[in-house]
Amino acid sequence: MNPQALDLTNKLTQFHEYWAPRTITEFNGHDVMVVKICGDFTWHSHADTDDFFFVLQGTMFIDLPDDVVVQINPGQIFVVPRGVPHRPRAPEEVHLLLIEPSGTPNSGDIATAAPRRWL
Amino acid sequence: MNPQALDLTNKLTQFHEYWAPRTITEFNGHDVMVVKICGDFTWHSHADTDDFFFVLQGTMFIDLPDDVVVQINPGQIFVVPRGVPHRPRAPEEVHLLLIEPSGTPNSGDIATAAPRRWL
Repeated sequence: MNPQALDLTNKLTQFHEYWAPRTITEFNGHDVMVVKICGDFTWHSHADTDDFFFVLQGTMFIDLPDDVVVQINPGQIFVVPRGVPHRPRAPEEVHLLLIEPSGTPNSGDIATAAPRRWL
Repeated sequence: MNPQALDLTNKLTQFHEYWAPRTITEFNGHDVMVVKICGDFTWHSHADTDDFFFVLQGTMFIDLPDDVVVQINPGQIFVVPRGVPHRPRAPEEVHLLLIEPSGTPNSGDIATAAPRRWL
């Protein structure tokens, strides 16, 4: 254990790519990650895990079935239940905290998923 | 699923008691909670779960064995690994996001734990 708090703003200065989450610590078999996003992601779902989004900066949207759109502002959380198709998108740059079971493909498909990277 | 983002600042205006976490949503069998703390908690540990702290407002400290002290400022995260004794404390009021498996006693002991409450 490294007995030091992890500063999210500091972590987010250390990389610039979009849609490339960085693991900053682990929690009960999950990766705790920061990520920068901009633009539209693909529609996907995760059969085995809920999807946790916490917006730190900027405003993002998550498209859900039946034309439902969830807006997430800074300081807001949204959890997409497992199995629910969704499309994250960000008209402008957004900084996020994500939590997913270690090894979860971010695209829902291991073939197109971002690799696991630590900060 | 309620397709609406959860606003942490808004949730935190809805109660005032210290050390009384409120569940705002669930994620992979965990409670996602907000809590206000002030003063010293008890030394305790959780045999079966890591302990996730994300400070939203104020500055808190977590005492660890061997006189190690971790300071956590707003925007910072610290995870206490399972089994590690720790004492959270806050000289002044602190607002936190906590994530724990649903049913985890916050004191490490079901006899003294805060009840599970939803917001």
